[in-house]
Amino acid sequence: MAAPKGNLVVGQSGGPTAVINESLIGVVQEALKHESIEGIYGARNGVEGILREDFIDFRQESASNLEAVAATPGAGLGSCRFKPTEEDCKKIFQILEKYGVRYYFYIGGNDSALSAGIVNKIAKDSGYELRVFHVPKTIDNDLLVTDHCPGYGSAAKYVAQAFMGNDADNRALPGIKIDICMGRNAGWLTAAAALARVNPGDGPHLIYLPERSYTLKQILDDIDAVYQKNKRALVAVSEGVADADGHLFLQSEKIRAELRELGMEKIIESFEVSGQVEDLSGGAKKDAFGHIQLSGSGALADFLSAVVKTYLFRKYNKKARVRADTLGYAQRSMAGVVSEVDALEAREAGVAAVKTAMIGDIDGSICFRRIKTGFGKYLCEPFRASLEDVSGVNFPKGMKQYRPMEDKLIVEAGNDVTPEFIEWARPLLGTLPVKGLLKGVPVKKA
Amino acid sequence: MAAPKGNLVVGQSGGPTAVINESLIGVVQEALKHESIEGIYGARNGVEGILREDFIDFRQESASNLEAVAATPGAGLGSCRFKPTEEDCKKIFQILEKYGVRYYFYIGGNDSALSAGIVNKIAKDSGYELRVFHVPKTIDNDLLVTDHCPGYGSAAKYVAQAFMGNDADNRALPGIKIDICMGRNAGWLTAAAALARVNPGDGPHLIYLPERSYTLKQILDDIDAVYQKNKRALVAVSEGVADADGHLFLQSEKIRAELRELGMEKIIESFEVSGQVEDLSGGAKKDAFGHIQLSGSGALADFLSAVVKTYLFRKYNKKARVRADTLGYAQRSMAGVVSEVDALEAREAGVAAVKTAMIGDIDGSICFRRIKTGFGKYLCEPFRASLEDVSGVNFPKGMKQYRPMEDKLIVEAGNDVTPEFIEWARPLLGTLPVKGLLKGVPVKKA
Repeated sequence: MAAPKGNLVVGQSGGPTAVINESLIGVVQEALKHESIEGIYGARNGVEGILREDFIDFRQESASNLEAVAATPGAGLGSCRFKPTEEDCKKIFQILEKYGVRYYFYIGGNDSALSAGIVNKIAKDSGYELRVFHVPKTIDNDLLVTDHCPGYGSAAKYVAQAFMGNDADNRALPGIKIDICMGRNAGWLTAAAALARVNPGDGPHLIYLPERSYTLKQILDDIDAVYQKNKRALVAVSEGVADADGHLFLQSEKIRAELRELGMEKIIESFEVSGQVEDLSGGAKKDAFGHIQLSGSGALADFLSAVVKTYLFRKYNKKARVRADTLGYAQRSMAGVVSEVDALEAREAGVAAVKTAMIGDIDGSICFRRIKTGFGKYLCEPFRASLEDVSGVNFPKGMKQYRPMEDKLIVEAGNDVTPEFIEWARPLLGTLPVKGLLKGVPVKKA
Repeated sequence: MAAPKGNLVVGQSGGPTAVINESLIGVVQEALKHESIEGIYGARNGVEGILREDFIDFRQESASNLEAVAATPGAGLGSCRFKPTEEDCKKIFQILEKYGVRYYFYIGGNDSALSAGIVNKIAKDSGYELRVFHVPKTIDNDLLVTDHCPGYGSAAKYVAQAFMGNDADNRALPGIKIDICMGRNAGWLTAAAALARVNPGDGPHLIYLPERSYTLKQILDDIDAVYQKNKRALVAVSEGVADADGHLFLQSEKIRAELRELGMEKIIESFEVSGQVEDLSGGAKKDAFGHIQLSGSGALADFLSAVVKTYLFRKYNKKARVRADTLGYAQRSMAGVVSEVDALEAREAGVAAVKTAMIGDIDGSICFRRIKTGFGKYLCEPFRASLEDVSGVNFPKGMKQYRPMEDKLIVEAGNDVTPEFIEWARPLLGTLPVKGLLKGVPVKKA
């Protein structure tokens, strides 16, 4: 079917990544090649910009500036955290129609696939030809269908490089170092810490993921064992670590009970008090237990650091050097730390979305299928999946609309990843820095 | 004077940097060229390794492995936080003598220059020819005499790139973002955030440094003003930010009094409670006020975030998006984020130390003198300073033994750096990533 003449709108949504602009510029550069595409518009701040008819004209941007934007983290058009209602989607469709838009591209996570799907259905029902494509992005790598998500490789590279450095630092000044990684529902990003291992004995020595549940006892025993063996321990912990009920540690009755047994209940109480300050702003959500959500703060790191320090001090009557960092926004936005593979694929996803939209009156989401894996052999190709499959909208109620790490990627004890994960993830990070270790032949004592 | 035949010992001390191994390998590679240097020994964990006679043999390391180690963050020999007493220094000297050491190189901060100076004096007094050199390193850039310190450029590059990314992220999802940077006594590293500015309107919009003192009112007014103007604000805060009495914010009676006036005293109390958990481990130091030292935790970030959020919510009855990160250890150890200029100079400092030691029976610390500054014109050369001048050991009591930022580098209001700082610092960071911004010509409303 011939591609209809008309305008194009592209938007970006959700948390930015280091390469979300690669996808944006991929859409724009491919669009510039097609005569049937007239205006190439960018919606500022995703669907919010569409609703307020706030578009910019990509034909006014120079090719060199487009390349500079592609290489910049953050969403160049601005992003939004807004999940449009059915009503909003109707309005979005009306505005797209009013602006003569025939091509609509939305770069985002599964909520974006969902809203794109709703707009698409409204257009279909109205008999208006609108070619709607979702271009996936997320550092969490938890989207359905695709082998992996653009954005993940660069975030994983950041995590791996941070752990490489933390490991070298921890070797130099031995102690226990805990790093909290992003990813509330899925452990993909935390697991990438394992790619920091280069030399024998390299950390991270322990990895805790949201796909499994933990007791404080397991974590303390694990850390204690590694510390006694190596005199140091580097530990990766997902911000989503939870107890057997699925409750986050700082909101867990089970963890509280364990602390009570350990005579450390004061610790969690103090973090709860500190969490409550958020409440003053009138906005903090409480969970089922009436506790405050502490995401985005340094509280989990500080909490684990305090518990580990106290536990080891009481057990050995000797102070251990315990430090904890919360890796923070740099995971998704560090300038200059980009996986070349991720950047290329993110660009390719944008290009493929436009190319596929030109084939016929179809719609969908651009996913990746892995053809070959392994060192030096990695090969992926983009393919079109349905908006419904990617958003999980037709899933039975209660079924997860995101993709957790498969069992085979996590060791039995739940505190590390398997070699299969390493093989799967390694190509996605592109080049990694060298990590040297002195052979260290001892000089004979004089 | 002919260089005496004998062995060489090199050690590393204090917090590692991204390029401290460049200096180490510089010492080793230059030493390999001089016939009078026989054994080339590395002391594990600095002076601790000397005291336990724990040396490794650099002649057993391959050239390629030395290069890999040079490119790795952290201290390849291991580091220590140990400040030797006069008695320890005597023992160190005896061990060096026992091992036939004639060349002693110690890579570290001003405490390292101090202990090297003591060992040097003991050797002189004994009539034993020992050539002692200090090779400076610190991410804080607060050593005396030198124009800047090896280690600073790479840490500054990390901070600048983190802020470039945070700024792009903050543009995409506007709100207030606060990042806490390392540097308790001096603001050099926090100030490097200013190098993230590329395009008009780029953050950081405010920078708070330990060289100045602040009231909570100033910071809240500053942030409020920037936020009202730009709908967003990116803020760099030194971990050493203090009140007019020089007390850190979380330990300040003045800040507490301000919070009382604002009806927010609950906030600081809760952070104090959370600080007290450290006390369970029996090790936390208390300051003059009996408060707990909170360094190395996420508490300052979480505290400022809570205060700003609460303040703006109360003033405008509208929730602002406020986020805060504590940049953490990645500032000093991120693998792969290294300033080329810093790496070259760190190597050069190690090389220059050995070269200078071969000239005659002299000792000292290798500093840098700036010959030319400005874009594309930067030129520095190493020179020898005395151990005493660099350690500040002969300073009158009460005089600072570290180097704060000069007044001319900070704006009058204390909340930003001057163009002079930017000109001074820019060459030290080496190449920085591009940061593109869409021109954003609006599409005419339909």
